[in-house]
Amino acid sequence: MTNQGNNLDRWYDSYAQRTAGLAASEVRALFAVASRPEVVSLAGGMPFVSALPRDLVTGAMERVMRENGPVALQYGSGQGAPMLREHILEVMALEGIRGSVDDVVVTTGSQHALELVSKIFLDPGDVVLAEGPSYVTAMVVFKSFQAQVEHVATDDDGLVPAALRERIARLKADGKRIKFLYTVPTFSNPSGVTLSWERRLEVLEIARSNGILVLEDNPYGLLYFDSPPPHAMRSVEEEGVVYLGTFSKTLAPGFRVGWALAPHAIREKLILANEAAVLSPSSFTQLIISEYLSTADWRGQIDTFRNVYRERRDAMLQALGDYLPDLSWTVPHGGFYVWLKLPDNIDSKSMLPRAVKELVAYTPGTAFYANGDGRNFMRLAFCYPTPDFIREGIRRLSTVINGELELLNTFSQTSPLATIRPEHNNISPPANLG
Amino acid sequence: MTNQGNNLDRWYDSYAQRTAGLAASEVRALFAVASRPEVVSLAGGMPFVSALPRDLVTGAMERVMRENGPVALQYGSGQGAPMLREHILEVMALEGIRGSVDDVVVTTGSQHALELVSKIFLDPGDVVLAEGPSYVTAMVVFKSFQAQVEHVATDDDGLVPAALRERIARLKADGKRIKFLYTVPTFSNPSGVTLSWERRLEVLEIARSNGILVLEDNPYGLLYFDSPPPHAMRSVEEEGVVYLGTFSKTLAPGFRVGWALAPHAIREKLILANEAAVLSPSSFTQLIISEYLSTADWRGQIDTFRNVYRERRDAMLQALGDYLPDLSWTVPHGGFYVWLKLPDNIDSKSMLPRAVKELVAYTPGTAFYANGDGRNFMRLAFCYPTPDFIREGIRRLSTVINGELELLNTFSQTSPLATIRPEHNNISPPANLG
Repeated sequence: MTNQGNNLDRWYDSYAQRTAGLAASEVRALFAVASRPEVVSLAGGMPFVSALPRDLVTGAMERVMRENGPVALQYGSGQGAPMLREHILEVMALEGIRGSVDDVVVTTGSQHALELVSKIFLDPGDVVLAEGPSYVTAMVVFKSFQAQVEHVATDDDGLVPAALRERIARLKADGKRIKFLYTVPTFSNPSGVTLSWERRLEVLEIARSNGILVLEDNPYGLLYFDSPPPHAMRSVEEEGVVYLGTFSKTLAPGFRVGWALAPHAIREKLILANEAAVLSPSSFTQLIISEYLSTADWRGQIDTFRNVYRERRDAMLQALGDYLPDLSWTVPHGGFYVWLKLPDNIDSKSMLPRAVKELVAYTPGTAFYANGDGRNFMRLAFCYPTPDFIREGIRRLSTVINGELELLNTFSQTSPLATIRPEHNNISPPANLG
Repeated sequence: MTNQGNNLDRWYDSYAQRTAGLAASEVRALFAVASRPEVVSLAGGMPFVSALPRDLVTGAMERVMRENGPVALQYGSGQGAPMLREHILEVMALEGIRGSVDDVVVTTGSQHALELVSKIFLDPGDVVLAEGPSYVTAMVVFKSFQAQVEHVATDDDGLVPAALRERIARLKADGKRIKFLYTVPTFSNPSGVTLSWERRLEVLEIARSNGILVLEDNPYGLLYFDSPPPHAMRSVEEEGVVYLGTFSKTLAPGFRVGWALAPHAIREKLILANEAAVLSPSSFTQLIISEYLSTADWRGQIDTFRNVYRERRDAMLQALGDYLPDLSWTVPHGGFYVWLKLPDNIDSKSMLPRAVKELVAYTPGTAFYANGDGRNFMRLAFCYPTPDFIREGIRRLSTVINGELELLNTFSQTSPLATIRPEHNNISPPANLG
């Protein structure tokens, strides 16, 4: 329960127990900070929607209203528009997924699919396994249904299978009920790492043999910069995976259109939960996206996004090598994020106000753990600022970090810490997150 | 838990307990039936969106994309777009409501506000009070959070205060925890009746003195046909009411934009719940509606809708008087619905297949009760079909009802039942629903 203002809240004693788990995320407060124009925000994961030609959207919308207006303006099916679901199959086929249009449920962004899956599966005290670190607002959802999030260690190839096996065994020994494994296996948020193909098979086998559902969240898979990533886990396992996709990154988040592809019985419950929650997702935005996918070169548009984000990823890696050469970070081959490791004694959350004073923002590592871990990590998003701003942001960040180290050196003479000095043209190898 | 296909569902034992409460509503199955063009559907509550000039929507959208494209395509605030919230205050002012833009939370249709309020308030076993009959998909939401719906009797002036007092006393004596009173006080779904002004004050006083929150759901208030209805309950009580509104009936449901106006502390929790559920409502549809409200004669458009629905209400009342003069029904002064009372021994749900065979559909009364009541009632929606189709639908319905009565007369000689014969120009007085 939020402690502020109890005395002012006449309904304080009326809230459901689960409401105690609904706390403002650290990312949330950052959105306000990041919106000030003088701040270089490496915090929020906002797609660069300006790379989407405006007339593609306007044209699709005009055709929808001309040819199908009364349908676009009306309530629709709780499962989503049939034609859009056909298009979604085409999109998923790019990542090796074959499925039936009957098993796709359109949702209000893939975030709402997370909410619906959680609502139908999670009782209080249930366990959800998640990568350490994991997507912050997924954990907010799990906790809002009173589930316990248990992290599994990751390294540069994603989830560590041995750690997953060990964690499951220990939780089962403790009598815990594990409902599902939540994973962003491709270009993870926040770490940017990708689960290797061999590990995908191994993780699926571990889940299968333990009767644990896999919730595969894949917003970034099509935004690869180098070679394509391994196929989705759903491509080789149908009955044990609920797969989540979205148009937020390949088109635009303002439409709030995502989807779940689920085994039959689960899909049926997702539709009922979707109807209860919103009656039906927006026909208007669904039909516009469907028209866009029918008529525009959407694969070419994804290439455009890839090129934009690749350039920004490169700018960030270059700047990190130039300004923070003694630190380590992940090297993402797609997506939006780099995960930066700071010296052990720096707390990225307590450093944030000083960073904002220096006009740069990031997301502290603790936001991505349910257990307080991640103190000396931060997530750096390269999706939104231009390459020049990214470089300037990293320069400012290096000033902040160096200032922090000097401060720590001054007040703590016990541990000898060198100030990290900017050096140029020296990109570090990938960090090991294990 | 749905019983179908347990053996086929490998995840059957994994669902949350609340999922047992997520059953397909009776209205849901009807949407499939109603979509066949040869059936006159008096079942679904679909607004007649064709009365909205297409260019009003297209023009607003073009301006939004031209002037504000990157904002419309981006994630927004979990509370909703500030300018739209300003407009929402103007809309609510028409029903006597004064509030702060800070206390409005935009949701994915007002249905999602119902879901969010339920999520933050309802623990398993909690009681929600609701009119008998009440809106079906609200009850689906309450039950999906394992709450118990308790009906309070209504008559032609809405909720009966004495019945409300008595019900609260009895539930409290039983040790029940009553979380809120859910009410559609104006042009109720399904009964079409309106809570009188005197009773609004009395119901608010009863709620206040018992520490019970009022959830005032008002989708139809601006769609009055005769004189304006009493002001909203929220107009005289701020701290004890969460008010829900929507653009689904005054504009179009395809946008999925509604809202809650809530006391400060509750509003804060609604925002957090909204962020967890969908990150933010659609910027794209919010900005289009905001632009529409800024530039179009939206009050004139509501008058257009009023005129369309008034004509249809009149057609339905006329046809009921002509074809089913011996039955009784409510006379709505706004909204979408008439509530028809059948002879006691007719079960409207079991009669439905025969009605569909006669090419007319309605919603059985039991859909609007959580306890099996309403067997000999039905909801007739006049919002969507043209007056001619409404008249033809009621003619077909009279054939079905007469056939049902003949059947009952044939098989049950114990109770002497007269067949109701169509007579003309004889509109019955309002039914008493008490």
